[in-house]
Amino acid sequence: MINVEEAQEIIFDKIKTIGDSEVGIQDALGRILSEDVFSERAIPPWANSAMDGYAVKAEDIKDASKENPAELKVIERIQAGVKAKSILKNGEAIRIMTGAPIPQGADAIVLQEETEEDDSGIVKIFLSVKSGESVRIAGEDVEVGDLVVSKGAKLNAPAIGMLANIGMATCKVSRRPKVAILATGEELVDLTETPEEGQIFNSNSYALAAQVEEAGGEAVLLGIAKDNTQDLIEGIKKGMSADILITSGGVSVGDFDLVKDTLEDLGNEIDFWRVRMKPGKPMAFGLLGGIPFFGLPGNPVSTMVSFELFVRPSLLKMQGIKDIFRTKVNATLKGELFKSPERRHYIRAVTNFNGNHWESRPLEVQGSNILHSMVRSNSLVIFPEYETKLEDGKTVEVILLNDSTT
Amino acid sequence: MINVEEAQEIIFDKIKTIGDSEVGIQDALGRILSEDVFSERAIPPWANSAMDGYAVKAEDIKDASKENPAELKVIERIQAGVKAKSILKNGEAIRIMTGAPIPQGADAIVLQEETEEDDSGIVKIFLSVKSGESVRIAGEDVEVGDLVVSKGAKLNAPAIGMLANIGMATCKVSRRPKVAILATGEELVDLTETPEEGQIFNSNSYALAAQVEEAGGEAVLLGIAKDNTQDLIEGIKKGMSADILITSGGVSVGDFDLVKDTLEDLGNEIDFWRVRMKPGKPMAFGLLGGIPFFGLPGNPVSTMVSFELFVRPSLLKMQGIKDIFRTKVNATLKGELFKSPERRHYIRAVTNFNGNHWESRPLEVQGSNILHSMVRSNSLVIFPEYETKLEDGKTVEVILLNDSTT
Repeated sequence: MINVEEAQEIIFDKIKTIGDSEVGIQDALGRILSEDVFSERAIPPWANSAMDGYAVKAEDIKDASKENPAELKVIERIQAGVKAKSILKNGEAIRIMTGAPIPQGADAIVLQEETEEDDSGIVKIFLSVKSGESVRIAGEDVEVGDLVVSKGAKLNAPAIGMLANIGMATCKVSRRPKVAILATGEELVDLTETPEEGQIFNSNSYALAAQVEEAGGEAVLLGIAKDNTQDLIEGIKKGMSADILITSGGVSVGDFDLVKDTLEDLGNEIDFWRVRMKPGKPMAFGLLGGIPFFGLPGNPVSTMVSFELFVRPSLLKMQGIKDIFRTKVNATLKGELFKSPERRHYIRAVTNFNGNHWESRPLEVQGSNILHSMVRSNSLVIFPEYETKLEDGKTVEVILLNDSTT
Repeated sequence: MINVEEAQEIIFDKIKTIGDSEVGIQDALGRILSEDVFSERAIPPWANSAMDGYAVKAEDIKDASKENPAELKVIERIQAGVKAKSILKNGEAIRIMTGAPIPQGADAIVLQEETEEDDSGIVKIFLSVKSGESVRIAGEDVEVGDLVVSKGAKLNAPAIGMLANIGMATCKVSRRPKVAILATGEELVDLTETPEEGQIFNSNSYALAAQVEEAGGEAVLLGIAKDNTQDLIEGIKKGMSADILITSGGVSVGDFDLVKDTLEDLGNEIDFWRVRMKPGKPMAFGLLGGIPFFGLPGNPVSTMVSFELFVRPSLLKMQGIKDIFRTKVNATLKGELFKSPERRHYIRAVTNFNGNHWESRPLEVQGSNILHSMVRSNSLVIFPEYETKLEDGKTVEVILLNDSTT
């Protein structure tokens, strides 16, 4: 039986990036930029005032002080957005607001607080400033040709502000992968139905859809296929128009696990059927007419953990994201863990950073059907294949499930 | 001048939670649950098999071994979703699949791998198991009346899976606060226009809209108000139908900073106009006809940092989230910082966890107009009010901007 890394290698090798689409920047939050964005403009486009005050020639006020103020004639007043009409000459000042272009002839700004203007239009300057003082030079934020946001970046608020800053109304982002989700199992009923004895609600489709959306994909719910070949084939065919097809359930070795037989009947090449892990041993992957197919196990926790390890990174890779894995940290295990050797276990745990190190507390109930411990955990402790005991206080590797690095 | 905490206290005191709405669970990802959800059902609803195998009476196989197998008659075969018709008697077994209800009379499951069935319907059991073996008892995941997801939780994939698990097709979530955004400034042009000399693109509206969406709100862009009272009043009035109104620019002391005068003319009570911080000293807050009004500064970085400290937590509070602040960590400063006393500085920095501690590297350019350093940073180092120097290697407090705790 292959291990998790071997399965990942087989999968990621077959996952290709998908195309892009152009969106308005107001719709781009959280999307993945699909091209490097270089600025065609300098920001600011022209030297401008960093403060409200007076534009002057620094040489005119080089001896100015509280006791011996320089006196300049105010020849114009400009607000942001307006270019001065005058060219500043010696002995003159222009009243200027933050962001307004530096007038021709001026080389420094004196803060309003260091001045006093009288009714006759003469301003007293109480402080000597150097040439360049409170002047923002053109291009100090962005120069023409600068790379401002990189391909593969997840667009957050500062990045979107930057795109607007350089005048981009739209940008190219990776298309959101369409993910068809088919739940399988005779025991499943939809949320709108009332389960009879022996039946349970289909929760996997909704949990998977949320996982898909969290990973930037678009979920397409195909409903429930009962355990018969016709239902399955119908569902699978519907899923073939998506970018990825996921099924849950039916990939084990039981008498009624028809997904395996059905796929084999369809003549598809499935790369593997099992991975040496827990929860989630039964797990299939292959290309179905060129479409990546993930046959996830049916137990709710197994489904979600398998999605985490195999489908989520695939969706990120499809979108052109480089760092496709969750953050892993070393944490101190608070509690003991036991298991039999061979399979790697992913232990649901609550992991916190305690001032100077990470601590990981495994949840008590770890059954692959126990969804409440998935709700209460924020991380998975890795319990290696051939280990049988992890002692209290040991340093363990932990996958953080709620990081936001991508 | 009040400090950041004083400003926050004034603001948060006036922010009330808003109402809720009912959404389908497939649309609930990232929304804030507005009521405690208790389960009306037990999960699993009935004892069921944890494995594919045979349901037996444990007493019948208590001496079974490889050498001396117990032989039982297979009287029925059931898959998941189906209840056995027979009541199991001594000497009998029922073939059972994972998830299928435990038949009446059976008290243990023997794994398929430990058995061998012949054509005549007799199964050999090679292993003795205890009563209860591989039986999932009713309610082991969720009991009737259990609190499964708490009010105020941000719904993630496991939580949505859990809601489906207990049969909820819809849930009550906090309404997304509507946030009207008005950019002000004579120098601003929209992204569809071509700036003339002295003019720049309106980037604040788009950056703020993205910040609003990240905080769970719904942004309503009111465009640009030029620096005249009529434009401003018109814009402000349009914003009064929202849950929050934000302006950017115009709250400073300059001759053309009309927001202040306009609001005073409208007869509104503004609680404060300045906060002792940098970037972002000019900053107004008050209620405008009962609507929280935030007059943010105009420089792009000042706008975003002020949003972070004041508007974001307000939006979270409105949605009923309890922990409204970003994660703060102690980090080792990599580099030196200097400033004059009085204002608290928020220094854009790149902060990483380096195996066993956090390290924070301030970006070189910290001007309040330098948006690229906002794009490249992931955190804000807090440089306290009356400090003038932070030495290399000092432990500093850092706000992580990309945490996902809420």
